[in-house]
Amino acid sequence: MILGRSSWPQAAEFLKDSDSKVVLIPTGSLEQHGPHLPLLTDSLIAEAVAGRVEALRPDTVLLTPTLWLGASEHHMAFSGTVTATDSGYLAALNSVFASLNRHGAWKFLVLNGHGGNEALNELAAREASRQSWLAAAAGWYRFVPDSVWEATLTGRDRMIRHADEAETSVMLHLHPDLVAMEKAVDDGLEIEPPVPGLASGFHQRTTHGVLGRPTLATAEKGAALLEAAVQGAVAAVDALSGPLGFLQPED
Amino acid sequence: MILGRSSWPQAAEFLKDSDSKVVLIPTGSLEQHGPHLPLLTDSLIAEAVAGRVEALRPDTVLLTPTLWLGASEHHMAFSGTVTATDSGYLAALNSVFASLNRHGAWKFLVLNGHGGNEALNELAAREASRQSWLAAAAGWYRFVPDSVWEATLTGRDRMIRHADEAETSVMLHLHPDLVAMEKAVDDGLEIEPPVPGLASGFHQRTTHGVLGRPTLATAEKGAALLEAAVQGAVAAVDALSGPLGFLQPED
Amino acid sequence: MILGRSSWPQAAEFLKDSDSKVVLIPTGSLEQHGPHLPLLTDSLIAEAVAGRVEALRPDTVLLTPTLWLGASEHHMAFSGTVTATDSGYLAALNSVFASLNRHGAWKFLVLNGHGGNEALNELAAREASRQSWLAAAAGWYRFVPDSVWEATLTGRDRMIRHADEAETSVMLHLHPDLVAMEKAVDDGLEIEPPVPGLASGFHQRTTHGVLGRPTLATAEKGAALLEAAVQGAVAAVDALSGPLGFLQPED
Amino acid sequence: MILGRSSWPQAAEFLKDSDSKVVLIPTGSLEQHGPHLPLLTDSLIAEAVAGRVEALRPDTVLLTPTLWLGASEHHMAFSGTVTATDSGYLAALNSVFASLNRHGAWKFLVLNGHGGNEALNELAAREASRQSWLAAAAGWYRFVPDSVWEATLTGRDRMIRHADEAETSVMLHLHPDLVAMEKAVDDGLEIEPPVPGLASGFHQRTTHGVLGRPTLATAEKGAALLEAAVQGAVAAVDALSGPLGFLQPED
Amino acid sequence: MILGRSSWPQAAEFLKDSDSKVVLIPTGSLEQHGPHLPLLTDSLIAEAVAGRVEALRPDTVLLTPTLWLGASEHHMAFSGTVTATDSGYLAALNSVFASLNRHGAWKFLVLNGHGGNEALNELAAREASRQSWLAAAAGWYRFVPDSVWEATLTGRDRMIRHADEAETSVMLHLHPDLVAMEKAVDDGLEIEPPVPGLASGFHQRTTHGVLGRPTLATAEKGAALLEAAVQGAVAAVDALSGPLGFLQPED
Amino acid sequence: MILGRSSWPQAAEFLKDSDSKVVLIPTGSLEQHGPHLPLLTDSLIAEAVAGRVEALRPDTVLLTPTLWLGASEHHMAFSGTVTATDSGYLAALNSVFASLNRHGAWKFLVLNGHGGNEALNELAAREASRQSWLAAAAGWYRFVPDSVWEATLTGRDRMIRHADEAETSVMLHLHPDLVAMEKAVDDGLEIEPPVPGLASGFHQRTTHGVLGRPTLATAEKGAALLEAAVQGAVAAVDALSGPLGFLQPED
Repeated sequence: MILGRSSWPQAAEFLKDSDSKVVLIPTGSLEQHGPHLPLLTDSLIAEAVAGRVEALRPDTVLLTPTLWLGASEHHMAFSGTVTATDSGYLAALNSVFASLNRHGAWKFLVLNGHGGNEALNELAAREASRQSWLAAAAGWYRFVPDSVWEATLTGRDRMIRHADEAETSVMLHLHPDLVAMEKAVDDGLEIEPPVPGLASGFHQRTTHGVLGRPTLATAEKGAALLEAAVQGAVAAVDALSGPLGFLQPED
Repeated sequence: MILGRSSWPQAAEFLKDSDSKVVLIPTGSLEQHGPHLPLLTDSLIAEAVAGRVEALRPDTVLLTPTLWLGASEHHMAFSGTVTATDSGYLAALNSVFASLNRHGAWKFLVLNGHGGNEALNELAAREASRQSWLAAAAGWYRFVPDSVWEATLTGRDRMIRHADEAETSVMLHLHPDLVAMEKAVDDGLEIEPPVPGLASGFHQRTTHGVLGRPTLATAEKGAALLEAAVQGAVAAVDALSGPLGFLQPED
Repeated sequence: MILGRSSWPQAAEFLKDSDSKVVLIPTGSLEQHGPHLPLLTDSLIAEAVAGRVEALRPDTVLLTPTLWLGASEHHMAFSGTVTATDSGYLAALNSVFASLNRHGAWKFLVLNGHGGNEALNELAAREASRQSWLAAAAGWYRFVPDSVWEATLTGRDRMIRHADEAETSVMLHLHPDLVAMEKAVDDGLEIEPPVPGLASGFHQRTTHGVLGRPTLATAEKGAALLEAAVQGAVAAVDALSGPLGFLQPED
Repeated sequence: MILGRSSWPQAAEFLKDSDSKVVLIPTGSLEQHGPHLPLLTDSLIAEAVAGRVEALRPDTVLLTPTLWLGASEHHMAFSGTVTATDSGYLAALNSVFASLNRHGAWKFLVLNGHGGNEALNELAAREASRQSWLAAAAGWYRFVPDSVWEATLTGRDRMIRHADEAETSVMLHLHPDLVAMEKAVDDGLEIEPPVPGLASGFHQRTTHGVLGRPTLATAEKGAALLEAAVQGAVAAVDALSGPLGFLQPED
Repeated sequence: MILGRSSWPQAAEFLKDSDSKVVLIPTGSLEQHGPHLPLLTDSLIAEAVAGRVEALRPDTVLLTPTLWLGASEHHMAFSGTVTATDSGYLAALNSVFASLNRHGAWKFLVLNGHGGNEALNELAAREASRQSWLAAAAGWYRFVPDSVWEATLTGRDRMIRHADEAETSVMLHLHPDLVAMEKAVDDGLEIEPPVPGLASGFHQRTTHGVLGRPTLATAEKGAALLEAAVQGAVAAVDALSGPLGFLQPED
Repeated sequence: MILGRSSWPQAAEFLKDSDSKVVLIPTGSLEQHGPHLPLLTDSLIAEAVAGRVEALRPDTVLLTPTLWLGASEHHMAFSGTVTATDSGYLAALNSVFASLNRHGAWKFLVLNGHGGNEALNELAAREASRQSWLAAAAGWYRFVPDSVWEATLTGRDRMIRHADEAETSVMLHLHPDLVAMEKAVDDGLEIEPPVPGLASGFHQRTTHGVLGRPTLATAEKGAALLEAAVQGAVAAVDALSGPLGFLQPED
């Protein structure tokens, strides 16, 4: 069920049997994605994956609107980027958890479209876990199997980068009118800094805000990735909505 | 310009002459609107008004995505409602101001769709003013002239209530598929508490979450109200984008 | 009962039957009021109204000391003004609510003297309402009926402005020794900015810190306004202290 | 100068030569003081001392209203007590410092009447020091020389306790109408816990909320203590308002 | 028992009878101690005292690792000093209290080595007391009887200063390899500012970061002080671990 | 240089040429590590690796004391575990960064021993990066090459788990007296939950608090892992202390 399009009696009815329901929360960003992609790219992809998951499991999934205000400080050197503060981002996500829990929901899946949100999503899920709620948070790209990454893209690992072949392909599939392929440039291809876990701004690692090879993108590749992500996320929804045999019971 | 659909070079180009640009930020809620309207009502209306304003002033307005997570604690007794915390709401709005200011923008108009956000929007605008930015925040209903209210609706004042004749009419005009008129009930019509400024939950004042007479709503009334709001908001954008003769200069 | 002058056994006795008691909390400011009024004007007026209400309903009202540290950032361009932070102001007001609730009180009336506090008072009252306490917050001027405003003042609406005919009149009635009428100047009379909800500092809208026509003030007008405000506030106290038929019971 | 009774041009004039001015801020509490003293005792005493200091040094001292909302959690078992949160208390005091510093003031003396505020006053003064302001914070009792304590009271050290011979004496001198000597009881006289720095509530250490022997109090003793405190505080004001030879210059 | 060296089943066993157990938490700093002492001085001393207390009462004391990150803003003009924020320090100490309370512990003794932590330790202990836990916080120097101070040191009072005869002596006893006596200088000996409670940085009161006469230090003096502190702290542990006859029961 | 053992003049001298210095900050935890390892395991390992790195690069590395208070909420079902709050942990780490930056340092390497800290370390490094400091944060295990993991351990990937073969081996090498091998049990070996990014407590996934096969541990394996981690961390220090050719210059 799409929460935003429902009335309160419909929400009440849906959440009566909350043990079998999964709240699905898309998280994204409003941040630069190179000269060829729109600022809302991460949000649009997460929203599209989540929307398809809801369409496939309408009786299980309660889909919220997209949290489009992400943690994008590392992109702020590029115009148009809007970043949440860390605490503001956590407050928003926690508010969705806590509000819907007051209506009975206790299983949550955060479907993320922006790498910069990952640490915060993990903290939010941990906090939810502390409240004895069940919460998982993962980027859509984590639902794509390695085999699909390998079959689809040109020599890269599962780790998604930024405005790259993968993201551009998905956007070509979803919103071709918002992609300016003639402006796509390969960028940020130099060797990684030899220090693990180094924080840096995108202006320090790229020229145009791109990490990867968007010029290789096609709508077909995007369709394949999106489809795989949707299937993976549906499987996660199915696992969460059933009995949780993989966890020991809380006494 | 619609920020979310633009690339960062487009945003950079747009904000070069930031003195004549106005950032337009729709704010709404995800909260109960009676048995006949969807939870996202406030957000959809604010977004529609703002979208029309941008369409009329595309070279002046920088339209952000809608902040749909509003301050709705007083509706939490009705299922499906999601409420921000006060501090989380302020953080989100301040993040939009502050991020875009780092890209040069300094004039902001918050176009609100939810009465419960008003106090917080005022605080955010005050804080922006302290930063020497120019910020105004007003509900779309404040842009509708008294004469239009009187000509359009059935015996009421400019003060909008909740899921009432006015909101339902606008939704019938914008999203008739999301309105279940057969479930509309007039509600909350008793005399107001004889104490000004009394805080209360909607479950204490209504039976169904409605304050007003939605049964009187028509799409025509909604079109008239929406059109008037858009015209009023355009006038505000024009005033903000020009020289600010109505304010004394800051030395 | 005046809380500050009472001992703890007296407070304990008074709050035994807390359903019929109303805590009355005056809120004001320490901020510029033009060249003719003292910085503590808002606090002195709120305190005077509240004091008279307590004197008329000593067995119902528990009067706290005045919270004189208000939200006055928009006056900070004028010397002597002291402003609370928003969060600090809320903390103070919430502390009064929460502390007295631990002693049994649960009905609160915030009697405000400063427009800049209104948004914060509303947030505090909402938070109190969330705690299932009963809280109302209103400026003393809201207790004055329209008919009295019209009969008393020279062509103005109920909306009070700043250091104007109304405030100066009340101060002439209460504290003539603190009013320097020879320094009173009419100020800030230009047309309002054509943008609703625009935040601005008083240095941007006035020359001397005054919004209105204090030169028209008289002690007689002040006495009339004060008397009306006291009567209105007493009526609110009476309503709050009785059975709350105007609210649906919380289950 | 008494800030609250001044206009903004008077404040501006006073703070022109801010190096020789000292802002004097009385801090107190609204907390139980046994069955014989009013809840506002600490605030009334601090206010009285500060008022006399201002009267003796009107051209040096800028006296603010009293911060009566103190840190009184340890008295909350007794009715009527109102306590600030720690962060709320700090916010209030810091707001006074910061606001007046924006008008030029940078020397502050916090004149405290409540032991429970001491740790917080120290933190606030430290924070002020970090801002390169000059801030001192001390209870009025610290300005009374040991010799006066010994000459005045009956066998006790300089350390003031609570609602005891000293406080009751000062209140008999200042506000005899607010003291119910017939209800005064000696209390809390047992040996101290054999653990330094043990936190405890007053309900754990006293029967009636008193620590000491208020039955020994007289107005004469109170007058002597008050006079000594005023003289000591005036000396502190004089030291602060002059050149600060006792500190090394900040480069 | 030393918590950090124990396994969770050992901790569980130890805390079974939590009424007789005292959690011992050393707090210190990482701040300048003149040219002759290491930055970790306060932490090393607190840790040494606490370690000896644990060794004497292994069945009663649960010794945590040392909180070495203290409140040292007033030393920040000297290189190498690291200071906590006030709120960060409180969060750390409260986390230790709250975490161990969830495992059953409710009696806490904070053994402090740094004067700058005292106000914060008091606030933390008060907050613990509010939670109905038993918490005491005191510097190791407060456990040394006046008679030992007088017999050991050269003309000084019980109040410890900084990097002085006392601290240097204790370090000579504990860690002679970390003391550079040839660099010790007497410093900060001028008369105190004639204003009680004045906040200041150490760069404003000393030349080398020393307050006192470290040149008088000897390891023998240090051994005497340390031994006395340990005995005093053991007595406090014994009092806290037994029945609390010195407090009235909480109902 | 070891900061805690240095005096402030030594710190000042060391940080004169801060472009070539790297502050090394070990972070760990005080949390359950099964029945056979001590609660301080993570901290001891991080401290050991960092200590060896400092010993190999004494002129480059400024080693701080270990932040042993980690984010361990997910272990709180096991006694003895102490957890920081997220905000408290961030405050501590940020305080170390910010304090040492005031003394000139601007390159930081956080050497982590506890997986639960990773998200927070990333946030702290990002915030440092926003301040234009250079900050990297990585677990010691990330410095061990895949080839070493494969050559050393029994069928596992680089991802370290908890109290497992790897951690137990390193502890057998470092602190054999603190390891109770007779109590080691293999645990938590069931298949992972089929949902990526699922937050859970260790009591939901293990019986004894162990994730892995500690029974396979040997001191020799531990020595090999530790040595590899030290070498990897030294390489990171060397990269950070030199010219940063791998980053584009900040204009």
